[in-house]
Amino acid sequence: MADLVVVGSVALDTVRTPFGQVTAALGGSATYFSYAASFFTRVRVVAAVGDDFPREHLDLLSNRGIDINALEILPGKKTFRWTGEYGFDLNEAKTLDTQLNALAEFKPSLAPAHKNAPFLFLANIDPELQLDVLRQMERPMLTAMDTMNFWIDGKREALLRVLREVDVLLINDTEARMLAREPNLIKAARVIIELGPRAVVIKRGEYGAVMVSGGDFFFAPAYPLESVFDPTGAGDTFAGGFMGYLAQRSLTDAPSIRKAMIFGAVLASFTVEDFSLDRLKRLKAEEIEERYGAFQAMVSFEH
Amino acid sequence: MADLVVVGSVALDTVRTPFGQVTAALGGSATYFSYAASFFTRVRVVAAVGDDFPREHLDLLSNRGIDINALEILPGKKTFRWTGEYGFDLNEAKTLDTQLNALAEFKPSLAPAHKNAPFLFLANIDPELQLDVLRQMERPMLTAMDTMNFWIDGKREALLRVLREVDVLLINDTEARMLAREPNLIKAARVIIELGPRAVVIKRGEYGAVMVSGGDFFFAPAYPLESVFDPTGAGDTFAGGFMGYLAQRSLTDAPSIRKAMIFGAVLASFTVEDFSLDRLKRLKAEEIEERYGAFQAMVSFEH
Repeated sequence: MADLVVVGSVALDTVRTPFGQVTAALGGSATYFSYAASFFTRVRVVAAVGDDFPREHLDLLSNRGIDINALEILPGKKTFRWTGEYGFDLNEAKTLDTQLNALAEFKPSLAPAHKNAPFLFLANIDPELQLDVLRQMERPMLTAMDTMNFWIDGKREALLRVLREVDVLLINDTEARMLAREPNLIKAARVIIELGPRAVVIKRGEYGAVMVSGGDFFFAPAYPLESVFDPTGAGDTFAGGFMGYLAQRSLTDAPSIRKAMIFGAVLASFTVEDFSLDRLKRLKAEEIEERYGAFQAMVSFEH
Repeated sequence: MADLVVVGSVALDTVRTPFGQVTAALGGSATYFSYAASFFTRVRVVAAVGDDFPREHLDLLSNRGIDINALEILPGKKTFRWTGEYGFDLNEAKTLDTQLNALAEFKPSLAPAHKNAPFLFLANIDPELQLDVLRQMERPMLTAMDTMNFWIDGKREALLRVLREVDVLLINDTEARMLAREPNLIKAARVIIELGPRAVVIKRGEYGAVMVSGGDFFFAPAYPLESVFDPTGAGDTFAGGFMGYLAQRSLTDAPSIRKAMIFGAVLASFTVEDFSLDRLKRLKAEEIEERYGAFQAMVSFEH
């Protein structure tokens, strides 16, 4: 079992879907990521919140064994807040409001325990910050990152610098096309691999995820859910299951990356069953194993 | 190897995509279906064309061993013509013109060789015609059908009557939602099963296809193509590979249905690589086997 560091956001989300709503609920990329990964390995969160951040949320994370020593509480600041809504097509969120707050002044300086971690995930934050963290690492076995349209448009040069130095990019399909400037998804993945990463994992929401790496291609379906409550955090949960499994096994070979993608899809399938981290909070290890088996059954066919 | 009958359209298509265009090229649901199925079993086409239908197209089908005795040539009539175009998002065709012509007066009366076939596919035509053909069959082992928004909106009652009597519905995702009046795809499949079929195969274009049947769920990915030329006929080709494989083996059990879906996906992945039936015309049996193996490799992961 190897240490896994995540740098990203810890947020208070207000979300409305056709099935209900929550106000200032626990959210953020590093939150979903670390909670999902905590089912597999020790995770250390690097993030910043304001002094309005509820104590119970900190307790929730540390009670799962997540290391929050590098989760800075900035005095006099407010926590990052995001407000969004989804229509009946739950694939895309409409952002109604973003208040960066504490996240805007976040400049992490890693402690030795963090610098020496063999697995690192750079969640969707400013690529300059991603690069700064990446360069503080001593000798990671595997580094992965996410990004979004905002940075692809607004900080392309910085983003390209990070891409040159990471092993795996996890990204959604629209953003992969935007980053590569290529509408065909498979061609887009090849363009991205030319930019640096040795593997690209493209998340396609209800259609699952695909991994392209050299000549290798792997397809992970999404779990066929009859009711999806709130897709917020699905991508970060996927990344948490993915990196968490690899860190648990201390492996980065191709068969392990395939299994990691299925664990990512399994964890994400639980997150969307309820608002915020509510479903993950009730999640048991046996349920993860059981759903992993269901994924196997779902794609198996005879030779 | 069992006989397979298909009832549907044989057409002349004019298609424009961002990658080129063809005028009055060979098309139609029964054409794509029978050509794909001919790689597996003997297919008998029940359809009607006008006396403008080029002789070379008839030769193409009969040279593949396809039985065209019940492909009627209506004197003084014209062949069904469809004109459509696709944007860079190749998932949906925009119909520019439809001339039913010969198809409007088509009233098939099946010969004994057709009535006794154990496998029947009712391609996307008027549900009243589908029902008429279905009721002429003696004792089929497996019947399957396709349909589209035009019939779901315009002839819902007739369509529901056909659905009550077929074993398998193959349908695209938008139309499954429309038929079931349910946005969640898995719930939609369950609603459709309540209407009659024991299995529903939902085609999702570049995202592959899913099969729902009782408690069973199977996911077939689409082949990751770097260049798709023309998606016309992909769904009918899928159905042809699917039914062709089942008829070849004379099997209808769950593991065979899974394999049949992969063969459907394999054949469809070739069709979209060129216009009309151009890629299928060049297709070799070894290429089918090779791509089947690639599908296996694409979804395999360790337990």
